[in-house]
Amino acid sequence: MSRFSDRLAAAARAREAAGLTRRLVARSGAGEDLLDLAGNDYLGLAGDPRVIEGAVRAAQTWGGGARASRLVTGTLALHAELEAELAAFTGHPSALAFSTGYHANLGAVTGLAGRGDLIVSDAHVHASMVDACRLSRARVAITGHHDLEAVEATLATRAEAHALVLVESVYSVLGDAAPVAELAEICARHEAVLVVDEAHALGTAGPGGRGLVAGAGLSGAEHVVVTGTLSKSLGSQGGFVLGSAAVREHLVNVARPFVYDTGLAPAAAGAALAALRVLRDEPERVDAVRHVAASLALAASTPEPAAAVLSVAMPSAAAAVAAAQVCAEAGLRVGCFRPPSVPDGISRLRLTARATLTDAELATATGTLTRALTTALAAR
Amino acid sequence: MSRFSDRLAAAARAREAAGLTRRLVARSGAGEDLLDLAGNDYLGLAGDPRVIEGAVRAAQTWGGGARASRLVTGTLALHAELEAELAAFTGHPSALAFSTGYHANLGAVTGLAGRGDLIVSDAHVHASMVDACRLSRARVAITGHHDLEAVEATLATRAEAHALVLVESVYSVLGDAAPVAELAEICARHEAVLVVDEAHALGTAGPGGRGLVAGAGLSGAEHVVVTGTLSKSLGSQGGFVLGSAAVREHLVNVARPFVYDTGLAPAAAGAALAALRVLRDEPERVDAVRHVAASLALAASTPEPAAAVLSVAMPSAAAAVAAAQVCAEAGLRVGCFRPPSVPDGISRLRLTARATLTDAELATATGTLTRALTTALAAR
Ligand SMILES: Cc1ncc(COP(=O)(O)O)c(C=O)c1O
Ligand SMILES: Cc1ncc(COP(=O)(O)O)c(C=O)c1O
Repeated sequence: MSRFSDRLAAAARAREAAGLTRRLVARSGAGEDLLDLAGNDYLGLAGDPRVIEGAVRAAQTWGGGARASRLVTGTLALHAELEAELAAFTGHPSALAFSTGYHANLGAVTGLAGRGDLIVSDAHVHASMVDACRLSRARVAITGHHDLEAVEATLATRAEAHALVLVESVYSVLGDAAPVAELAEICARHEAVLVVDEAHALGTAGPGGRGLVAGAGLSGAEHVVVTGTLSKSLGSQGGFVLGSAAVREHLVNVARPFVYDTGLAPAAAGAALAALRVLRDEPERVDAVRHVAASLALAASTPEPAAAVLSVAMPSAAAAVAAAQVCAEAGLRVGCFRPPSVPDGISRLRLTARATLTDAELATATGTLTRALTTALAAR
Repeated sequence: MSRFSDRLAAAARAREAAGLTRRLVARSGAGEDLLDLAGNDYLGLAGDPRVIEGAVRAAQTWGGGARASRLVTGTLALHAELEAELAAFTGHPSALAFSTGYHANLGAVTGLAGRGDLIVSDAHVHASMVDACRLSRARVAITGHHDLEAVEATLATRAEAHALVLVESVYSVLGDAAPVAELAEICARHEAVLVVDEAHALGTAGPGGRGLVAGAGLSGAEHVVVTGTLSKSLGSQGGFVLGSAAVREHLVNVARPFVYDTGLAPAAAGAALAALRVLRDEPERVDAVRHVAASLALAASTPEPAAAVLSVAMPSAAAAVAAAQVCAEAGLRVGCFRPPSVPDGISRLRLTARATLTDAELATATGTLTRALTTALAAR
C-alpha cells in the first residue's frame, strides 16, 4: 500500500471510530417518502411549475451552459435581467450573479479585502466566508457570536485603514438573526464595511422576504454589501452580491471566483428569476414559512426563530442522533449537527420550515418532533 | 466620500489609466452576429437539442435546484448517474460531482493536502488551483512551466511526507499539453500524488476525448487524481473529481467546497449527462474540433495545438489588442490576454476551436485571422 492510500485509509478509520463517517444517500425521485425538514427550499419553489418553466425556457433559449466566463463571452442578457431584478427587489443599486453562493462569498470578501486589511468575522459565519478570509490574506479577527462590543473594540483599536465585518443576517445552523442595524452603525462609526450574507434570510425575513438589510432600511447604504444565494428560497443554484455600482464594477474586475469561472448556467438563472418573481408577487409565502417555523418551534419548546431555520440544542451528540433517528423512522427528515461540525461544540437538531407544507404534514411534523425530543431526552 | 468609496474609486482610476478596465457585455440572444472563437463550448454541445433536452427533463423531474447540500438531502439519483457515467467513460473507479469546476479544484486540493504537506504547482495552473493552494495551508513550491527537473528536485529534497503535484493536462491559456506520463512516473518514484486538471482536455484530447490521463493509460492509477469541469466540452455547469473510491469517500467527508455547498442543479447535471453520452457515441466530434484547431493554427502560423485552445503570442499588448480589434470588426470574437492577467508577461490572442463550425465559418475565421495578424504585426 502506498503512503497516499495509507493516509486515506487512516483518515477513514479515524472517522469511523469517532462515528463521524458521512455518506451520500441519493434521493430516488421527486416524490419522496420522507417529509424533508432538512433542506433549504424554504418557499417550496424548487418544484414550483413556474420555476421549472423558467429553467426550461432559459435552457431552450440559451442552451445548457454559458459557454465562457462572464468577461469573455459568457454574459447573457438573462444574467443582466436577473441582476437587475435582484437589485430592484432588494433595493440595492446593483447586483452581480455568481455561479454559487459559495463563489459569491469568496468573491465579495477577497475582492474587498486583501493583505494589509482587517477582517472581523463572527465565529459562526459559513464555511465559504471562513475560506474567503483565508484566501484574502487580510488579518482576521474572530469575534464571539453577536458580540458587538468585541466588534467595536477590534475596529477601534486596529492599525489597518480598511476593515470588513462579516456576519450572516440569519445564521445557517443557529437560525438566529444578527443585529444588522447596530452592526452597520458600528461600521459607519469606524469606517468599516459590513458584509452581510443573507443566504437564509432572502424569502424568509425582512419586508416581503427582502432580507434583514432591507428590514433595517440599509439597502443602498454605501458601507453595506450583501451576499446571497439562489439555491435556497429561490430553489435554484448560484449566488449574488448586492451593493453600489462601484462595488459591482470592482468585483467584475478583481474577484477571482467571478473572473476565472464559467458564467451561471442559463437554466439556473432562469429558474431563479422565475422564483424571484413569485416571491415578489406572492409575499404571503413569506408569512406561510414563518407560520410553519413558529409551529415547529412550539412543538420543540424553543423560541420562535428569526426566519425558517430552527435550531434545537441537545444535551449530547448521542441524544441528537437518537432524536433524529426517531424522526427518520416516522418519515421525517431533519438535520443533525454535532462536533466537530459545530463551532461551539453543542449538538443540535436543525429543522427547516417550508411554506408549502400542508396542514396534515405540519401536524405530522410537530407531533413527531415532540415525541422524538421527549424520547431522546428521557433516554439520557 | 468615505474611505471605502475612495478606495474603490482609486482602484477604478488605476485600472482605467492602465487600460485594464474590464466590462461585461451581454450577449443578446442565442443567434449571435459574432462568430465566437473565445468560448469553451468545444464540441458545440451547449446548444445541442439533446443536451437542452437533458436539462429540460432534469428540471421537470427534479425541480430547479437540489434543495440542500449533498450530504443533507441534496444528492439525487441523477447525480449518482452522472458520476457513474463520468467514471465509466474516463476509466476511473469513481467520480464526484461539484457545483463548478472551480469548486472541484478547491475541493480536491484542499481535501488532499493540508498544513505540513507540500504542493508543487506548475506556474501556469488555473486561478482555482492557485486559490486552492492558498486555502490548503500546505507549503507551495511553484515550478516553471513543464519543468520536470524542478518538479523532481522539489519532491526529492522535501521534508514533508506527503506531496501533491498540480498541472493542467491542456493549459487553459497556452493550449499546450503537460507531459502527463513523465509527471506520473516522477510522482510514483517520489511517493507523490499527481492532480491533473483536464478542464480543457475532456472532449478534445486523448482517446475519444477521454483526456490525457486516459491517453497515458493512467486512468485508475492510484496516485493520479483528475479534476474537470462540466462547463466546457460538456456545455453545462459544474465540475468533478475522478479517482479511487477512497479518494471520493475522503472528499465527501472533508472537502469544504463540497460539504458546505448546495448540490449541483438538476438541469446542469442533466445537460452534462446528455452531453457526455453524445461525446461517447460520436467520437468524430473530437476529430472535428481538432481539425478546426489545426486549420486555425495554420492560418495563424503557429504549431498545431494539443487540443482546442490556440495561443498566439504577440509582440506587445497593443499588437494583441489591435489584432483582436480587427477580428471583432470582421465579426470574429477572439480572446485577448495581456499583463497582468498572463503569468509570464507575454500578450496573447487565445482562440478556441469548435467542432460544429461550418466550412464557410472556418474559411471566414482563417481568412480574418491571417489578415488581423498581418495588419497588427505590420503596424508595430
Ligand atoms: C450562510 C450560507 N452562505 C453561503 C452558502 C453557499 O451557498 P451555495 O450553496 O449556493 O453555494 C450557504 C449554503 O450552502 C450558506 O448556508
Ligand atoms: C483549467 C481550468 N480549470 C478549472 C476551471 C473552472 O471551471 P468552471 O468554470 O467550471 O468553474 C477553468 C475555467 O473556468 C479552467 O480553465
